[in-house]
Amino acid sequence: MQEPHPQRSTEAVLISEVGPRDGLQSVKATMPTHHKRAWIDALVAAGVQEIEVASFVPARLLPQMADAAEVARHALTHPGVCVMALVPNLKGAEAALHAGVHKLTMPVSASEAHSLANVRKTREQMIEEVRAIARLRDEIAPTVKLEAGISTAFGCTLQGAVAEDDVIWLAEACVKAGADESGLSDTTGMANPAQVKRLFTRLRRSLGSQAGAAHMHNTRGLGLANCLAAYEAGVRTFDASLGGLGGCPYAPGASGNVVTEDLVFMFEAMGIETGIDLARLLAARLPLSAGLPHEPLYGMTPEAGLPKGWQPASSRQAGLPS
Amino acid sequence: MQEPHPQRSTEAVLISEVGPRDGLQSVKATMPTHHKRAWIDALVAAGVQEIEVASFVPARLLPQMADAAEVARHALTHPGVCVMALVPNLKGAEAALHAGVHKLTMPVSASEAHSLANVRKTREQMIEEVRAIARLRDEIAPTVKLEAGISTAFGCTLQGAVAEDDVIWLAEACVKAGADESGLSDTTGMANPAQVKRLFTRLRRSLGSQAGAAHMHNTRGLGLANCLAAYEAGVRTFDASLGGLGGCPYAPGASGNVVTEDLVFMFEAMGIETGIDLARLLAARLPLSAGLPHEPLYGMTPEAGLPKGWQPASSRQAGLPS
Repeated sequence: MQEPHPQRSTEAVLISEVGPRDGLQSVKATMPTHHKRAWIDALVAAGVQEIEVASFVPARLLPQMADAAEVARHALTHPGVCVMALVPNLKGAEAALHAGVHKLTMPVSASEAHSLANVRKTREQMIEEVRAIARLRDEIAPTVKLEAGISTAFGCTLQGAVAEDDVIWLAEACVKAGADESGLSDTTGMANPAQVKRLFTRLRRSLGSQAGAAHMHNTRGLGLANCLAAYEAGVRTFDASLGGLGGCPYAPGASGNVVTEDLVFMFEAMGIETGIDLARLLAARLPLSAGLPHEPLYGMTPEAGLPKGWQPASSRQAGLPS
Repeated sequence: MQEPHPQRSTEAVLISEVGPRDGLQSVKATMPTHHKRAWIDALVAAGVQEIEVASFVPARLLPQMADAAEVARHALTHPGVCVMALVPNLKGAEAALHAGVHKLTMPVSASEAHSLANVRKTREQMIEEVRAIARLRDEIAPTVKLEAGISTAFGCTLQGAVAEDDVIWLAEACVKAGADESGLSDTTGMANPAQVKRLFTRLRRSLGSQAGAAHMHNTRGLGLANCLAAYEAGVRTFDASLGGLGGCPYAPGASGNVVTEDLVFMFEAMGIETGIDLARLLAARLPLSAGLPHEPLYGMTPEAGLPKGWQPASSRQAGLPS
């Protein structure tokens, strides 16, 4: 496996595009495989360096993901791109490892109610699942990274508030069980910037470089504000979904991943490099729409267009007038 | 005139509702006066303490504002509410002062191109207009406050970038000319959080307590992130519009005031008091819709609803579980 993100500045961020997994598994229609390939190609052409390409789950549960291995193998033909897959359990991890992905992400819910509703397992059982996946990874593909994504980290539509101590305990437990990093997900769109800053600060204090990505939702319009707060707490990897596709089908009332286009606009406008060409990213909506012609796409930047005199972060940092 | 905002904590924010002016002047339909009254009543019932109720402009230019004096007089019947009016020039200021409003806001564009296109005056001519308005105010209603709103402070759809030095120079010049404070407006939706923090920090360093409100737009989805950045720079007054109504009809491509409901949700969730009851604020959309039945309303919080276990800032600060 290549090193996917060489020589990033300490200010630069990594935008992890989760649309092909999180977006596509949340819509009813199934995107045909060749459209998935074309969409991933367009994302890579825009400069996206990390893509969650699929979820390795039984096709009877998520027919949208029946072609996970094929899509992963296609994504792996792009050099320098980190190909991620979501795995809900050991069986999914085995399939994803055999497909050759670079990174596994395993959702583990901080809310016991959500965990039981979503995967019918307690949090302790999920920690054991992480341990089993880490062992399998060590045996058959030791260079593959494993991230635990702590879901419902900022609140749960089923149980309401989630104790911050529980979130940190679970994130630490997953790393102790063998995950390379633990990130935090606002699965239900309940996070606020003060909470985001507080929790990620605690997470980074506790886990250091093993503190993972911020996965924010725009359910109540706070997606970008929460990403900004996470950035200020030191987070440098952000999940987002092109066109805001997706959410969490198992958390009633939750919807709306952060829109990749708006997130990239925010960081680039701030002079923080994403490595992504915004005009090409907007163009990547075309293959997405072609593959899902009846699905609404979101995003304010795509609607408004780039402002007059737009300059990406790289030009700003090169000292050109801004 | 009563003191409209007694005993606010240093953390608390003032949400200045601009929908009855900025929102209504941006839509084609004219809201009947009795509907405006009902909407203002609902805003006051929700706890809104400052409302920009109208623009004092000739009815032939903005028929939506023909009843400005009548609407202002109605708003003035609510004790403790600061009643603001936009005035584009001395003539408008005279009418607004005679109507008895508590505060005048005068837009002054930092972009020469926008100033000429919008009011056919240079920036220097606008500073003289501020001076004339301040003199008139001193003569006939010396307790009335005058705020200069520096528009296109973060970029202009006509001229592109706007020099930060120009923005600060203009804000200072307006205060020297007699304005009580100068605020900054992202008229065109081009602001980013780094720029917002930088400019408001400079503004506050230069003007101290005479640094005014942040008026942000959500054109590219960054409205709340920019408000968060302004808050971190020390700003405590924020303009917003219920349902995101309005924008700037004279800046092509610009649209979308920050949605009051989402902004209040953000601050209250962070434990920062707004004095506004969010459930009642959501209810204030009804009279707005009744008066403008064909106008789309925006807002993510209204769509998602309040999260399970929702607690306003006042309960959080009182030490109840959060």
